[in-house]
Amino acid sequence: MAEPLDKADLAERRFDTVLIANRGEIAVRIQRACRELGLKTVAICSEADRQAPYGKTADSFLCIGPSNAASSYLNQDAILLAAHLTGAGAIHPGYGFLSEKAAFSAAVEKAGLVFIGPEASSIATMGDKIAAKRAMILAGVPCVPGPDTSLPDDPASVERIAQEIGYPVIIKAAGGGGGRGMRVVPEADQLHEAIALTSEEARQAFGSPALYMEKFLQHPRHIEIQVLCDTYGNAIWLGHRDCSMQRRHQKVVEEAPAPGISSETIKPVGMACVEACRQIGYRGVGTFEFLYENGAFYFIEMNTRLQVEHPVTEMTSGIDIVQVQIQVAQGVALETAQGDVTCTGHSFECRVNAEDPESFLPSAGTISDLALPEGPGIRVDTHIHAGYRVSPYYDSLIAKLIVHAPSRAEAMVKMREALAATRIEGISTNLPLLRALFDDEGFVRGGTDIHYLEQWLKHRRAA
Amino acid sequence: MAEPLDKADLAERRFDTVLIANRGEIAVRIQRACRELGLKTVAICSEADRQAPYGKTADSFLCIGPSNAASSYLNQDAILLAAHLTGAGAIHPGYGFLSEKAAFSAAVEKAGLVFIGPEASSIATMGDKIAAKRAMILAGVPCVPGPDTSLPDDPASVERIAQEIGYPVIIKAAGGGGGRGMRVVPEADQLHEAIALTSEEARQAFGSPALYMEKFLQHPRHIEIQVLCDTYGNAIWLGHRDCSMQRRHQKVVEEAPAPGISSETIKPVGMACVEACRQIGYRGVGTFEFLYENGAFYFIEMNTRLQVEHPVTEMTSGIDIVQVQIQVAQGVALETAQGDVTCTGHSFECRVNAEDPESFLPSAGTISDLALPEGPGIRVDTHIHAGYRVSPYYDSLIAKLIVHAPSRAEAMVKMREALAATRIEGISTNLPLLRALFDDEGFVRGGTDIHYLEQWLKHRRAA
Repeated sequence: MAEPLDKADLAERRFDTVLIANRGEIAVRIQRACRELGLKTVAICSEADRQAPYGKTADSFLCIGPSNAASSYLNQDAILLAAHLTGAGAIHPGYGFLSEKAAFSAAVEKAGLVFIGPEASSIATMGDKIAAKRAMILAGVPCVPGPDTSLPDDPASVERIAQEIGYPVIIKAAGGGGGRGMRVVPEADQLHEAIALTSEEARQAFGSPALYMEKFLQHPRHIEIQVLCDTYGNAIWLGHRDCSMQRRHQKVVEEAPAPGISSETIKPVGMACVEACRQIGYRGVGTFEFLYENGAFYFIEMNTRLQVEHPVTEMTSGIDIVQVQIQVAQGVALETAQGDVTCTGHSFECRVNAEDPESFLPSAGTISDLALPEGPGIRVDTHIHAGYRVSPYYDSLIAKLIVHAPSRAEAMVKMREALAATRIEGISTNLPLLRALFDDEGFVRGGTDIHYLEQWLKHRRAA
Repeated sequence: MAEPLDKADLAERRFDTVLIANRGEIAVRIQRACRELGLKTVAICSEADRQAPYGKTADSFLCIGPSNAASSYLNQDAILLAAHLTGAGAIHPGYGFLSEKAAFSAAVEKAGLVFIGPEASSIATMGDKIAAKRAMILAGVPCVPGPDTSLPDDPASVERIAQEIGYPVIIKAAGGGGGRGMRVVPEADQLHEAIALTSEEARQAFGSPALYMEKFLQHPRHIEIQVLCDTYGNAIWLGHRDCSMQRRHQKVVEEAPAPGISSETIKPVGMACVEACRQIGYRGVGTFEFLYENGAFYFIEMNTRLQVEHPVTEMTSGIDIVQVQIQVAQGVALETAQGDVTCTGHSFECRVNAEDPESFLPSAGTISDLALPEGPGIRVDTHIHAGYRVSPYYDSLIAKLIVHAPSRAEAMVKMREALAATRIEGISTNLPLLRALFDDEGFVRGGTDIHYLEQWLKHRRAA
C-alpha cells in the first residue's frame, strides 16, 4: 500500500512542463488541460505524424522515431530522452500505447520525472486479473463468481470448480485483457480442450499460461465507474457510464449515466470502488469495469489510466478529469468531496472512426472537406482539420462527438443533430453506422447488452 | 393583466412548423432548438443571404425581399405571407429586427399564428420607459431615483425635480432605448437647454417628445437578470449576467454570474423581477437590465425577447432557454421550479464581429479560411463557414465564442485558449481586441464599469 507523500516528496513532484507521450485527439485534449493549468507542453510524434496540428501549439515538438508505433510511441527510451532534451518534468501517457505498462511508470519515476498516472505497483496489480480480483473482494467490490486463484493443473479439481460455478463458464488468461485470451465453455465435455487451447494462447500472447475461471454471463451490459484519487487517501467516484455498445470489444458509443440503473442501485458499488482505491493506495484517475446482469454487478477489470470515454462523465459531473489527473500528479489534494459531486443530465459520446462502414477496414487518406457540429450542448474532441492526412499506422479514431442535455431523449436528439451536421470528405468513416444506430429502436429504448451491436450489424447486413 | 389560456386556446396554440424571422447565428440557434423539439422550420432570407447555410438545413427556405432590411427582415407583410405559403404555425422573431415591435406580435397573432414572444401589450408596456418604470415600482423592483411620469412642461417644476433627485441627472426619451435619445446634465445651469435638445431628438427619432428624468450614475456596472415565464403564471429567474464590457452601448463580452455579486445580494432583485412578470402577465423569455453602483441595483429596461448573450446563462443554468421559449409559446407549463434552478461555474461570451479592430468599421468579404475552437467547455454559435460571404448589410456579429468552467479564473483561461484557436481569414475581425481584453489586468480582476472598455480603448490608442 502506497504511503501519502511527505512534504519533501511534494516539492520534488512540482513540474512546469509536461511531455505528452501520445498522439491524435487525446494529445490535443491533454495539451489543452496543461495549458489551462498554466503548464508548458512537449508534443512528440512519429514520422507519420510530423504534420500533427498539436505539434504547432505545443511549446516543444519532437519527432522521436519512425512511423511504426513500436519504434516511436512505444519506445520508452526515446520518450525519456525527449523529456530530458526538452526539460519536461512529467510525462502524460494518455490511453493505449504505454499508459498501462507498469515498467514505463517505474522507468519515468526512476528517471526523476513524474508519471501522470498510478504507481507501477498499482498498474501491475490491476494488470494481473487474479490479483485484481483478490483486491476487489477484499474491498467489497462485487465480482464474477469463481475462485480468486489461478486454475490448478489437476483436471478433477478444475471440473469441480466449474461445477460449483455452474455452466456456462469462461476461461481467461490471468495476464490477458481487451477481449483476448478467453474462451466460453458451455458444457462440461468441452472443458479440458478449452483449457488446453486458452493456456497455450495465453503462454504465447502474454508470456504466462496461468488461467482463471469465472461464471459466464449471457446478456450482460458493460457498466463502468470513474474514480479520482489523490496522494492523501482521498478518493471519489463520479457516477457511472454505459459502454455496452461494442463491436469486437471496441466501444463505439458510450453514455452517462447508464439508462435504467438508479443512483441508489449504483451507490454501494461506487463506494466499494472508492474503498478499493484507498486499500491499494491508488492515485490518479481510474475506471472500474463491470458486467451487469439481472440487477447485479460483476467486476471485470480496472483501467489504470484515462479512458477514451472520459468526456461523458466530464459532461455530467462538470469536472475536468484530465486537469484533476494532472493536479493530483503534482501532489495537489482533491478539491471535490464526494458530497459535492452532482451528476446532471445525460451525455453520449460517438467514436468517429476512419474506417469502411461495411467492412470496418481502416480508411487512410486526406480529409478534403470537413464540417464539425457546434452549438449548445455539443463538444468535439479531435485533432483533424480539412487537409489532414489520416495515416494507416494507428488507431482509426479521428474524432469524438459528445453531447449533453437534460434527459437521455434530448441528448439522443442532440446527437442525431450533431451526426447530421458532421461531414468528413475524402476518407470513409463510420458516420453512416452511427447515424443508423441513433435511429435504432432498441438503442433508443436503452439498456441493450454487449452483444447487441454485433447482432444488429448482422441483421442489417442480412436485410 | 393576461389571463392564463384555457384548454381551447391551448389546442389552437399547437404548431408543428416555425418560421424563423431572422438571419445569422441566431437563425441557426433557433433552427437547432426547433429541430430538437421535433418541429419543422422555415428559413427566410434577403437577396444578400441567399447562400445562408441555415437555408439548406431548414424544411423550407424562402427569399422574401431585397438586401436592405427594411424590405426583407423588417417587412411584416412579406414575412406573414411566407408563413402562410409554407404552412408555418408560429413565428420566432429572434433578436433585433421585429422582435420588440408590439405591432408585429399583434399582427402575427391576428393572422392566426403564434408569436414566439410576449403579447403585444407586454412589449408595448416595456417599450414605454415610463410605463415600464411604473410597473417595476409596483412589483418592488429597484429603480433609478426619479419620478415615474414624463417631465412636465413647466420649467420651475422640472428644476425642482432635478434638485430633488440631485445632480448629475439624465434626461431620456420615454420611447427611446439602445443608448439613443438621452443626455446627461451635470449642473443646474445646463438643464433647460438639455431638455429642449433631447425633446426635439425624441420627437424626430421616436415620434414623441415625451421625456423623463433620472439620477445619473457615474460608474455603474450593467447587470441583468434572465427570466422565463409560462402562460399559467409560473415565472422563474436564472441568475444574473454582467454585460458591462460595452463600446457605444454595444456589448462586446458578457459573463455569468456577475463577479463579486453574491447570490444573497441578487436574490431579492431576482424575486422582484419574477413578481413583476406575474403582475404584468408576461409570457416567454425576458431580461431585466439594471445599473449597479455602490451595492444598489437600478432598473433601466426590460428586453422582451431573446438576447444575444443568452448562452452564458444556458451554460451556468443548464437550461436551454430557446427550447423553453418555444415550448412556453406552445402552451406548455414550465417544467423547472425556482427551487430546481442551480447555477454552477462561470461562463463568458465573446462577440466576434466582422469589423476593423482599430476603426470598428464593418468589414465585408469572403471568409477564405476558418478555424473555430472546440473541446471541453467550449461552445460556438455561428452561421459562418470557410467560403461564407459576409455581407455589408447587417449587424457585424459573425460568431459567439462561449466557454464554461468551474471558476471565473478557469473560464478566463479557457476563453484565452478559445480565442487563440480561432482563425478567421479574408475579413477583419475584432479578435485582436478580444484577445487583448482577456489579458487586461482590470478585466481579469473583474467588476469593471460600463465605461471601462471605451477608456481602455482610448489608452490603448494613446499608448
